[in-house]
Amino acid sequence: MSNRRLSDFLSGTTSRRRFLREGGLAALFAGAANACKQEPSKAAVGSQATPPASGQTGGTMGPHDTSSGASALAAAQSMDAMHEKGIKSFPAKTAGLGNQLMTPRLENGVKVYELTAKKIQWETEPGHMVEAWAYNDQVPGPQIRVTSGERVKVILHNQLPESTSIHFHGLELPNAMDGVPFITQPPVKPGESFTYEFEVPNHGSHMYHSHHDAAKQVGLGLLGAFIVEPKQKTKDDTPDVDQVFILNDGAHGYTFNGKSFPATQPIVAKLGQKVRIRFMNEGMMIHPMHLHGIHMTVIAKDGWPVPAPWKCDTLNVAPGERWDVIVNCNNPGTWAFHCHILPHAESEHGMFGMVTALVVQA
Amino acid sequence: MSNRRLSDFLSGTTSRRRFLREGGLAALFAGAANACKQEPSKAAVGSQATPPASGQTGGTMGPHDTSSGASALAAAQSMDAMHEKGIKSFPAKTAGLGNQLMTPRLENGVKVYELTAKKIQWETEPGHMVEAWAYNDQVPGPQIRVTSGERVKVILHNQLPESTSIHFHGLELPNAMDGVPFITQPPVKPGESFTYEFEVPNHGSHMYHSHHDAAKQVGLGLLGAFIVEPKQKTKDDTPDVDQVFILNDGAHGYTFNGKSFPATQPIVAKLGQKVRIRFMNEGMMIHPMHLHGIHMTVIAKDGWPVPAPWKCDTLNVAPGERWDVIVNCNNPGTWAFHCHILPHAESEHGMFGMVTALVVQA
Amino acid sequence: MSNRRLSDFLSGTTSRRRFLREGGLAALFAGAANACKQEPSKAAVGSQATPPASGQTGGTMGPHDTSSGASALAAAQSMDAMHEKGIKSFPAKTAGLGNQLMTPRLENGVKVYELTAKKIQWETEPGHMVEAWAYNDQVPGPQIRVTSGERVKVILHNQLPESTSIHFHGLELPNAMDGVPFITQPPVKPGESFTYEFEVPNHGSHMYHSHHDAAKQVGLGLLGAFIVEPKQKTKDDTPDVDQVFILNDGAHGYTFNGKSFPATQPIVAKLGQKVRIRFMNEGMMIHPMHLHGIHMTVIAKDGWPVPAPWKCDTLNVAPGERWDVIVNCNNPGTWAFHCHILPHAESEHGMFGMVTALVVQA
Repeated sequence: MSNRRLSDFLSGTTSRRRFLREGGLAALFAGAANACKQEPSKAAVGSQATPPASGQTGGTMGPHDTSSGASALAAAQSMDAMHEKGIKSFPAKTAGLGNQLMTPRLENGVKVYELTAKKIQWETEPGHMVEAWAYNDQVPGPQIRVTSGERVKVILHNQLPESTSIHFHGLELPNAMDGVPFITQPPVKPGESFTYEFEVPNHGSHMYHSHHDAAKQVGLGLLGAFIVEPKQKTKDDTPDVDQVFILNDGAHGYTFNGKSFPATQPIVAKLGQKVRIRFMNEGMMIHPMHLHGIHMTVIAKDGWPVPAPWKCDTLNVAPGERWDVIVNCNNPGTWAFHCHILPHAESEHGMFGMVTALVVQA
Repeated sequence: MSNRRLSDFLSGTTSRRRFLREGGLAALFAGAANACKQEPSKAAVGSQATPPASGQTGGTMGPHDTSSGASALAAAQSMDAMHEKGIKSFPAKTAGLGNQLMTPRLENGVKVYELTAKKIQWETEPGHMVEAWAYNDQVPGPQIRVTSGERVKVILHNQLPESTSIHFHGLELPNAMDGVPFITQPPVKPGESFTYEFEVPNHGSHMYHSHHDAAKQVGLGLLGAFIVEPKQKTKDDTPDVDQVFILNDGAHGYTFNGKSFPATQPIVAKLGQKVRIRFMNEGMMIHPMHLHGIHMTVIAKDGWPVPAPWKCDTLNVAPGERWDVIVNCNNPGTWAFHCHILPHAESEHGMFGMVTALVVQA
Repeated sequence: MSNRRLSDFLSGTTSRRRFLREGGLAALFAGAANACKQEPSKAAVGSQATPPASGQTGGTMGPHDTSSGASALAAAQSMDAMHEKGIKSFPAKTAGLGNQLMTPRLENGVKVYELTAKKIQWETEPGHMVEAWAYNDQVPGPQIRVTSGERVKVILHNQLPESTSIHFHGLELPNAMDGVPFITQPPVKPGESFTYEFEVPNHGSHMYHSHHDAAKQVGLGLLGAFIVEPKQKTKDDTPDVDQVFILNDGAHGYTFNGKSFPATQPIVAKLGQKVRIRFMNEGMMIHPMHLHGIHMTVIAKDGWPVPAPWKCDTLNVAPGERWDVIVNCNNPGTWAFHCHILPHAESEHGMFGMVTALVVQA
């Protein structure tokens, strides 16, 4: 989620520290967390807007099927314990946080962003360290957020063992700033720097990433969000929560903003609030993103407003695409939010990879 | 197809028994069936609305190419015979039929659906038996069809060797009814039952399926259509044929409504009729569905009306998505209808998997 | 690109021969070509519409990072040299050109197209010969371009070692002309011919291809564009450049119009011109096509006008789909244009496969 907004938001209700100490979802949504306590009847009515008649809802035990007897039940208990452990640890703490809003320095009215590309170790889920090629030690790289018409300088320092470059995906820049080695610039060699400078053109949810040996370099983490706010903001430009949601599926596994479940971050909002989600796919596969409980209204494709917003609960996001949606949080609870290619989200060991939650606090 | 409607429809023209006894397509569309008899000139003009000049259409034999001589021709004959055999057997009889409209029992004005999940053997195409995990012995599970605002109870009995749960995909339910173990309820263990109860919310073409070990359980068949009719019906809600079309691609191979070609069921309509198709993808892959001969008009996405209906002949259906389309049957004949990822539909042994037909009877 | 239009276009500014002799892009766009000469500062300002302050743009060398020292730099130089070689050879000359506009012969007012299907050798990129099954020795087959309402005859001669047929994908033809063996016609055996004849129905960007053993036959090249112009042309029907862009990913690798980068053809336009691109996917995978520098406006899906044109820079094209877009060439330069599933477009050896460029000449 937009980091500046998350901290703002949480400060009014809880603290990040408490959020993590109390086991995550418990601190965010007490009702839903009951479900983790294995009390069926409470769980089933935890957050119901329309409570059913008492005793008719919730897990009511039926007679045991003799064919699925003691051994099946033991195996099921064992599997369920793994699933429960994963979900209870969500959102799990890991080292490193990507997509942090970057504050530029100002030089004569020009916003200057310095990005250093180098190899790091990155923790995608608790205890799982991978080699990443990262901008400023973050996967995704720091979030750049500017306004259309502003003058911007992006200085790339290459500390990688390969040449690299930056393509500003979606921005309609002068050709020389397009970042394609041997077509618009020479590659930026190890140890070298390169400065991109331009007036920010078309607004929308864009990206920046390597365009050299990119199948490898982007897969390893050389990517980030480049959000361009319009000069004239509309109501959709001032949501209560503004969430960047970058999908990847390369060497780091199935990730949202550089993390795999249970280390993915939930989106947190209060009942009645408006969330804007900016989906971006930096992977090699298409991911149909499914939100439970509340539909999404699609307002932009690749930064361009759609002529007529349309609704869905499953949004197909292809590599290179960006889709902006609005979620009106009118249904309280903890809503699973995952890629619906199920092997990207769940195995017999439980949920993993491309899973997070939208928590709507009553 | 909607089972209640198919039977209604066929009763006026033919019987299901006769339909199967007479070799399928032959009973449905005499003109097209001629093509199977290897009489080129008849076949080619079988159902033409605008017949070409006599003798100028149809297979006219040219001289044999010496480089593709006797052995090539023999190999081609052999391959063609396999292809012909498959197509002539369509729609092939198999044991079991999924997606049968379920009649609930009424309890104090509440529609009660009981679903028993258990292991069964399922025949996907003639002679091909697979293990399925099914609701009420059907793959897909029985079709639930209700109206927005109705009170519904779904009682799940788990006779599987694993825990399970039901997620009502697309329905905007109270959180406790959302069916995600350890987030909204405990898992329903082997031998247990669980009751979901709610007032039916947003209308549209929705689904129900397992949300526990789901990559496996949904792949094995724990899925079904959950159709919500609107309180106020429009003309698109009363088509002549209302067809649910569930795609899957897991352990059972490439299937439509649980069956592979030639055991898939054709959609049958009369010339001038309106067919509504409700595509639902419960698989792990995207399937671009191509209809020959007549275009589709897209009217809804995930149950939500699209702001402006649009036309296509190839509709990309991603996992978790539902797309509703209208087909105005203004072109008589037997029209191939298949996934256009060709390896999902044809091999050197002939058509298989994701292939069916729309039969428009003149 | 539409061959008749490319030659018209180039004749005014350069010749095809000169275009190839001078190393391709250099002849097409002098500014961008500077980038290939490894002069960072020139490259970086090569084609900027808004030049940055002198000295602040372009590759300015930073201090070498000691951890990525001499050996890393040497490896990087070696990799970059491979990348540069590939790009400098673009558009590389290969034998054979597909999608050439076919001139029919006229017989009593009927346009007659003769297509001979046979095995050939096809060069997808310099030195890489593959077996192709082709119409009239072209991959894609010759482009058929007619007007709605015209009477057309397509005579298929089968010189292949297998039976075959032609399906006119997207055309709403009489059933007998639909080209599906054993459903609408017998297969056309080796050495035989078959005549399709019809009045051209719905206009739009359509295709023709084999519908017999098609997973193999289409993958090997039995496919082509079947463009139907409307009787009443709109402004979008008379663009400055009209480009057919057929994607494939079968036995020939990742190709655009039968060629892999660097043998793909660029799209060439002058600043201010309007380009219409007709994407068609004849492969087995979905390809999200990304254009740098200028957005695309989607005007048609499968030949049907979209109700409200919408903008994007990355367009997801699924097998069997056709998408028509307009590109208003208002940004000069050489713009990379590629599938954004990066392993379809780049490896450590450089760009390959599904890569081309839009060259906008100032």
